[in-house]
Amino acid sequence: MVRTGRGRDAPALDPVAIEEPLEVRLHGTPFAVIMRTPGADRELAAGFLLAEGVIASGADLGAVEHCRHPGHPELHNVVNVFVTAAARPALDRHLAERRLVVTGSSCGLCGRVTIESLSRRAAPVPLAWTMTPDAVRRLPDWLRARQEMFDATGGLHGAGLFDAGGACLGFAEDVGRHNAVDKVIGGLLLDDGLPACRAALAVSGRVSFEIVQKAWIAGVPLVCAVSAPSSLAIDLAETAGITLVAFARAGGFNVYTHGARVHA
Amino acid sequence: MVRTGRGRDAPALDPVAIEEPLEVRLHGTPFAVIMRTPGADRELAAGFLLAEGVIASGADLGAVEHCRHPGHPELHNVVNVFVTAAARPALDRHLAERRLVVTGSSCGLCGRVTIESLSRRAAPVPLAWTMTPDAVRRLPDWLRARQEMFDATGGLHGAGLFDAGGACLGFAEDVGRHNAVDKVIGGLLLDDGLPACRAALAVSGRVSFEIVQKAWIAGVPLVCAVSAPSSLAIDLAETAGITLVAFARAGGFNVYTHGARVHA
Repeated sequence: MVRTGRGRDAPALDPVAIEEPLEVRLHGTPFAVIMRTPGADRELAAGFLLAEGVIASGADLGAVEHCRHPGHPELHNVVNVFVTAAARPALDRHLAERRLVVTGSSCGLCGRVTIESLSRRAAPVPLAWTMTPDAVRRLPDWLRARQEMFDATGGLHGAGLFDAGGACLGFAEDVGRHNAVDKVIGGLLLDDGLPACRAALAVSGRVSFEIVQKAWIAGVPLVCAVSAPSSLAIDLAETAGITLVAFARAGGFNVYTHGARVHA
Repeated sequence: MVRTGRGRDAPALDPVAIEEPLEVRLHGTPFAVIMRTPGADRELAAGFLLAEGVIASGADLGAVEHCRHPGHPELHNVVNVFVTAAARPALDRHLAERRLVVTGSSCGLCGRVTIESLSRRAAPVPLAWTMTPDAVRRLPDWLRARQEMFDATGGLHGAGLFDAGGACLGFAEDVGRHNAVDKVIGGLLLDDGLPACRAALAVSGRVSFEIVQKAWIAGVPLVCAVSAPSSLAIDLAETAGITLVAFARAGGFNVYTHGARVHA
């Protein structure tokens, strides 16, 4: 989603990436506001709530409604989510716990504690799927070929899920790189496609702790970033059993964890 | 802050950017957890609380204490902040309001509302300071020359405040681009250096709504990004009276708003 960018004094007429706030409501009550590029909002809300631990799987999800009203155009920036009756007590407990710490999805004081708490939510990803070095090498091209909005604006992050043969299972672009990943994973969640245990997640930028966290919760066995990894991304990928590839560019790549999954 | 990155199976020995959670406490109560690169933690906490509207200025700040204890090394990831007695009632009101929406610093349903609510907090930046096109052109080089950790890891965002002659008033690197800006502005806040009304904020990546928001609250009249702007960044800069420059690279740049501030 792009528009032509011209401020009052601006000579520039380049298309720019649209950024607008999305309000995510839980049973009608405001829960979070996410600055995002409009589009795939239901997927974003679903993926965000999964990553935040508000829902544990697609089975917890009831309706995910995009609010629309012809007389109130601002409502296109609201998604209302309902969980099933069975998931309601867990949701209420979760919301009560969150009120203790206002922002931030992390729960501990150091990486070790944070990784431990994630380990209680998810088992390590099994080593049942591999990708050839040649396919890993081509992931950035497969991703780049779909980044139409980036081509226009230079201002959007891309994320895509690809199988070992290069088939695309999901793709999204967004001003926020976390949002792009949430949209891709949320799309699979809404289509009953999780865990995505036979696919690689390719991201256009750097890879931080939270990107690996989202991949783990979705069961994705390989994460490939065009740019650099952070220390905690490597630590978490090690614990999660995820193959972490970074600096995938110019025909080369670095493997940081679980390299056994990359072989011919 | 870097370390050498080698997972169990990793052939790579590149230095990687450190990422660890920082817990910000208010009067001893956990308030937020920020994933950040360790260093300048007091500055980060101060800048973050300013941007979030928890404090209105440096006058509201009491002690900003970095917790340290030889027997508990994890405490280096905790900063405890106290506000003055005069600022306490406003803090309590703010915390009560925040509990209504769990995450996200935005308060409205669309960009218009969000910008309006910011406008109630801050007046437009006056047009009292200018920068030559040549100086604007050199901002990315001034920034790049200080990005030592980026040189080592390729994985860190940089932010710097520079006056019209290129003198650096503050600089920070972090895995999070918002954190880098919070550290720079928080450093000035702790040194009674705000508003920074005679300086340009240069950032190494893209420029989104939140970067312009942080600049506005700090009184910074010009924001210059190496990469692309978002639509809402342009809208907010227009309202804030901030000169927004983006795609500052290869000796050129685009001016999106308030171009009168850039002249010879």
